[in-house]
Amino acid sequence: MKVLILGGGGVIGQKLAQSLALRGELRGKELTKIVLADIVTPAPVSAPFPVETTTCDIANPASVTACIDADTDVIYVLAAIVSSHAEEDFDLGYKINMTGTINVLERARALGTKPVVVFTSSLAVFGGEVPDPIVDHTLLNPQSSYGTQKAIGELLLTDYSRKGFIDGRGFRLPTISVRPGKPNRAASSFMSSILREPLNGQEAVCPVEEDFLHYYLSPRKCVENLIKGAELAEEDLGQNRNMMMPGKIWSVRQLIDAMTAVVGLEPAKLIRWEADAAIQYIVKGWRFDQAPKKSIKLGLTADDSFEDNIRYYLEDDKPSA
Amino acid sequence: MKVLILGGGGVIGQKLAQSLALRGELRGKELTKIVLADIVTPAPVSAPFPVETTTCDIANPASVTACIDADTDVIYVLAAIVSSHAEEDFDLGYKINMTGTINVLERARALGTKPVVVFTSSLAVFGGEVPDPIVDHTLLNPQSSYGTQKAIGELLLTDYSRKGFIDGRGFRLPTISVRPGKPNRAASSFMSSILREPLNGQEAVCPVEEDFLHYYLSPRKCVENLIKGAELAEEDLGQNRNMMMPGKIWSVRQLIDAMTAVVGLEPAKLIRWEADAAIQYIVKGWRFDQAPKKSIKLGLTADDSFEDNIRYYLEDDKPSA
Repeated sequence: MKVLILGGGGVIGQKLAQSLALRGELRGKELTKIVLADIVTPAPVSAPFPVETTTCDIANPASVTACIDADTDVIYVLAAIVSSHAEEDFDLGYKINMTGTINVLERARALGTKPVVVFTSSLAVFGGEVPDPIVDHTLLNPQSSYGTQKAIGELLLTDYSRKGFIDGRGFRLPTISVRPGKPNRAASSFMSSILREPLNGQEAVCPVEEDFLHYYLSPRKCVENLIKGAELAEEDLGQNRNMMMPGKIWSVRQLIDAMTAVVGLEPAKLIRWEADAAIQYIVKGWRFDQAPKKSIKLGLTADDSFEDNIRYYLEDDKPSA
Repeated sequence: MKVLILGGGGVIGQKLAQSLALRGELRGKELTKIVLADIVTPAPVSAPFPVETTTCDIANPASVTACIDADTDVIYVLAAIVSSHAEEDFDLGYKINMTGTINVLERARALGTKPVVVFTSSLAVFGGEVPDPIVDHTLLNPQSSYGTQKAIGELLLTDYSRKGFIDGRGFRLPTISVRPGKPNRAASSFMSSILREPLNGQEAVCPVEEDFLHYYLSPRKCVENLIKGAELAEEDLGQNRNMMMPGKIWSVRQLIDAMTAVVGLEPAKLIRWEADAAIQYIVKGWRFDQAPKKSIKLGLTADDSFEDNIRYYLEDDKPSA
């Protein structure tokens, strides 16, 4: 069982590789190799089997062909230009998030082996004039270029699967928090940084009001769900291969209170409140009131409480002093 | 006011040009030129202003650039590989229906003039495990490559409009009947041929049962709606620029009875009933129970009765003996 992770240098890609390394098997078969590919060479991950790290520019078909070998059984497509970045650079967003996805699907099709393709979509596919709650058959109505590109990826994943070219499964990720590392150009970056930086004794800026509601999942649960997602039986997926990954709705205030409950009063004092119209324009276009049924029925799960998300960060990710 | 019709050699393209020629104006401005472009040179249309006919391969960016001049005010995108054809030839379908649409949008964006782009989508974007009726915020859940390609076109139309590159408006066409001319490779081709051929004294084959329900619109109403569609005020369209074009639900039996009501008993006797599994696979994946609100509120209309559709064919299209 050979697994390729496109976007293997990112937070979820690295955690997924670490989790697979510990597990040693996927879809009932022993793991023999993981390839981590990204636009810059990913950090290595230690495992009891070979882990290869390589560069791959998914916007370049030749680069995609070079990094997807004929014996690749499972392809995780995590590579993407994030929301604010795709909004600022229209052409780059389409090049990576749409054309890049097409390149991967075309290469997977060319293999002729019907590989499993696990695609990460986003809650940014939802928005606008559609009624709450968001259910499994709600219109994909993105309010950003990033959401549009993810919605196109979903449609292609289903069509390539229907034709038997791949065995696709797509998951609309909630916002991942607490995400380790540095802030990125996702409009949702603050949803981790207002917790992560204070937990590390640093200041952070919150660009929205404390009653801002959103839909969250921890990195640990996300990786669990991505592994379950690869293991689901094809016949259980239905014709549309995409589904919401379960999350929970919390306010910014609830996130901060959870941090305080776990580590005490001091970190919350490091948060500065500075409204940012550009970020609010994007994140208020997202929909938090999600009521997934399909993914829950298939066994995917959300976090129990945001205190758990805080603890997972401390256990898995907090840099040692 | 210069209008370009891509797919100008097709049935709707030709009728649209004829209707615009009679009208002489669009969006409150005098028409000064119509360009009819298609993969083969379209038939000319007489008008009191210049009508140019030209070839354009929308899959070729250079060809698209050549046929969309900087002074083009309104672009109708009617060009497409039809449903059965796109299902048979996966690569050609994506090349024309997806890449071709992207080429047109990119060229329109490059003009820098924010032209009006009228895009024809299809009821084939709907299907599968979504509840009836289909409403304005129902998931696009295509069951075919053609429907997938049209859904992608819709998403792009909205995103390019949101960014201010174009003023897009997309309409999901019901099945057009009675469509003049010859049968084509649309799976829906029989929905006209079982009427058109008998009305011309010829045999026709019906590949579905007589209780097969579907959602129809006459070519005459379709063209009326496409002209209204170009004239809608941008601020009335909403963020999602796509909507169902209104139609009516009728059974095959009702279509045939309408023909009999208008022209008598003989033509219906020319219909042979031969079930066709391949056609049924596609057309039974389509959804007929559509309840558009947005387009009706904006003034688009359906036919009053299918007898009208029969009469329109006899008045507008029946070849003289």
